[in-house]
Amino acid sequence: MSEGPHVAARMDDIAPFHVMDILARAQAMEAAGRDIIHLEIGEPDFVTPAPVVEAGVAALRAGHTHYTGALGLPALREAIARFHATRWQATVDPAQVVVTPGASGALLLALGLLSGPGDEVLMADPGYPCNRHFARFCEARPVSVPVDAATGFQLTLDLIDRHATPATRAVLVASPSNPTGTAIAPGELERIHAWCAARGIALIVDEIYLALTYDGGEHTAARWDDVFVVNSFSKYFLMTGWRLGWLVAPRWAMPALERLAQNLFLAAPTPAQHAALAAFAPSALALFEACKAELRTRRDFLLPALRDRGFAIPVTPHGAFYVYAECSRFTSDSQDFARRLLEQAGVAVTPGIDFGRHGGDRHVRFAYTQPLPRLAEAMNRLDQFLQT
Amino acid sequence: MSEGPHVAARMDDIAPFHVMDILARAQAMEAAGRDIIHLEIGEPDFVTPAPVVEAGVAALRAGHTHYTGALGLPALREAIARFHATRWQATVDPAQVVVTPGASGALLLALGLLSGPGDEVLMADPGYPCNRHFARFCEARPVSVPVDAATGFQLTLDLIDRHATPATRAVLVASPSNPTGTAIAPGELERIHAWCAARGIALIVDEIYLALTYDGGEHTAARWDDVFVVNSFSKYFLMTGWRLGWLVAPRWAMPALERLAQNLFLAAPTPAQHAALAAFAPSALALFEACKAELRTRRDFLLPALRDRGFAIPVTPHGAFYVYAECSRFTSDSQDFARRLLEQAGVAVTPGIDFGRHGGDRHVRFAYTQPLPRLAEAMNRLDQFLQT
Ligand SMILES: Cc1ncc(COP(=O)(O)O)c(C=O)c1O
Ligand SMILES: Cc1ncc(COP(=O)(O)O)c(C=O)c1O
Repeated sequence: MSEGPHVAARMDDIAPFHVMDILARAQAMEAAGRDIIHLEIGEPDFVTPAPVVEAGVAALRAGHTHYTGALGLPALREAIARFHATRWQATVDPAQVVVTPGASGALLLALGLLSGPGDEVLMADPGYPCNRHFARFCEARPVSVPVDAATGFQLTLDLIDRHATPATRAVLVASPSNPTGTAIAPGELERIHAWCAARGIALIVDEIYLALTYDGGEHTAARWDDVFVVNSFSKYFLMTGWRLGWLVAPRWAMPALERLAQNLFLAAPTPAQHAALAAFAPSALALFEACKAELRTRRDFLLPALRDRGFAIPVTPHGAFYVYAECSRFTSDSQDFARRLLEQAGVAVTPGIDFGRHGGDRHVRFAYTQPLPRLAEAMNRLDQFLQT
Repeated sequence: MSEGPHVAARMDDIAPFHVMDILARAQAMEAAGRDIIHLEIGEPDFVTPAPVVEAGVAALRAGHTHYTGALGLPALREAIARFHATRWQATVDPAQVVVTPGASGALLLALGLLSGPGDEVLMADPGYPCNRHFARFCEARPVSVPVDAATGFQLTLDLIDRHATPATRAVLVASPSNPTGTAIAPGELERIHAWCAARGIALIVDEIYLALTYDGGEHTAARWDDVFVVNSFSKYFLMTGWRLGWLVAPRWAMPALERLAQNLFLAAPTPAQHAALAAFAPSALALFEACKAELRTRRDFLLPALRDRGFAIPVTPHGAFYVYAECSRFTSDSQDFARRLLEQAGVAVTPGIDFGRHGGDRHVRFAYTQPLPRLAEAMNRLDQFLQT
């Protein structure tokens, strides 16, 4: 007799992205002829710039279609290390760089190395939803620490100290953060780093949006050589679909990370690795900077526009391409709000509940991944929606 | 005071590939001017054929550089389903297909879904080394079942029945197998399938080498709709570096697999997905078949050549591009043998200990991933090596 399929207990805790329902519905509406403004998607609307594309083309035509080593092309590891030096004045040894399939791959490697059954990983709520699922996948316990405007939606030393237990193995910070775009203060991160170092607790810093910081400096945690720094070609470098990121890790961790990468991924995509080599050329960087300036202009439009309309955004987002807007003036059910906004106004946003359990029902995330005229149109539609 | 870094217990059980030492040494010797014949690498020497490369080029230039949905491009999922029908007469619903970052991604998804702490996963030893590491990564216990020539280096119903316990959650079979190239008999797999189905135990069949079967039929397990079938564009389709594979899964598993894929990978590489669409065109398939014919010719050369020289190969490999050769006439330490063969003869092979603990010290794996003249030269060098 069949006892029915067995599924691992972890699956009970791995939630779907609610935004996927929004996206699916948006696509169905588009198929039926409705015009939808997509502010729910976490990637820039810009395509990968030509110099990078053409480097990928050249690599493919040159027959670079085999596996690379698990840590990535030596030339790319060197280029990444150099980028840390030139852009951020941080000394990184290429031997400390693992090229990964996206920041996603880097997060899986770091948490797979550092956490297992009985272990706890501290992270901010709201935060990037995959983080708690990566920890859960590794059978560790993600400890979501509620954060709010008072701390810029970031962990603080005080919060960490209060939530740490003897089982705490790692602290995971993302700066600027998804969904809030807020950065952690350099001094605070320095104190957190010292606290972690003194306790043998690993510090993981996700810097996928670091190069997209509009206000204030870009302070990389890779200036310390005992920190796990996650980054990616997805956002600043406009290469989401290529699936390429990196991890800067302490020297002692490299042999273990190499073993994990060999087994979990074999290697990151080869054409992407060759293309990424061209992403550090001054001409390519100039294109990325132009896109960054455009994103900043959009932020500077969207932020007051949302505030004027009654959304509370107590902390100005320093970077990324998100505004995490409190909508409690209009609703106490962000998912319902997002659904109605889509149905009635044709504007797609992400309900806050995708980012955790702390206040998610009172927030929605606007991604400014559409050109200014579309953002303006979205605001017009929002006006009509809020009046009805 | 620092207590030093904590590392997850799993890392003690995740072994490096010993072949990496061979490869590193081979590359150092090459850098010093030695000519090395690489028979250690598990990928064809052929580059990706032009029609597939050009489809990738066109996709890149058309701006297909954003994320796809987590399950993959609908058109690719349909093409994969169609391939199962046209090549293997198996009915697969595109809704049952997950496009993954390589078969590696498919294995991680399947084992992540099916196994966790306290669970056991049965697999053959010798076998693909990552399998036991995927299970271990998921905190399940990989149960390596010793297999030998008597069962064609494959699991049998009898072996499974003897090693199963109430904790058994999945049986993992690869056919043709890495490292042996041997296929499982269709009748045996049918019995195993019925046994698993009756017990609610999942059957995972890795068919990454199925389309590279030289003798006998290509029998896909996807003809049953309750099996997890892993496949890839890496081997038959000559796309290793692109990192693209797929999983055919039971319908009930799809929502959970989608959640896992969203969180672990976000999506498979977009340029690769577009390129792969061109891999099913008759002209591309003709190129793959020509490469397959070449691989078969190499097998038919290498197999008797190795047997003549005293290696025991009791079961003729049906597919893949490996010969798993017993070398106990020459050594009882395959790693030492592989090292000496490299140093003295400039021929790189993989020591059997990479594939498990059962007889690995008495086997080496020859990958016929070099043109015939190089294989012939390797045999000449082997003659000299064995005479000294
Ligand atoms: C904070 C954060 N980290 C990591 C990722 C993963 O990105 P990728 O795997 O494309 O590099 C994302 C994607 O949205 C993110 O927002
Ligand atoms: C049996 C088997 N399964 C899976 C894989 C993973 O291949 P990929 O991730 O490139 O599809 C390999 C690679 O050698 C293999 O031999």
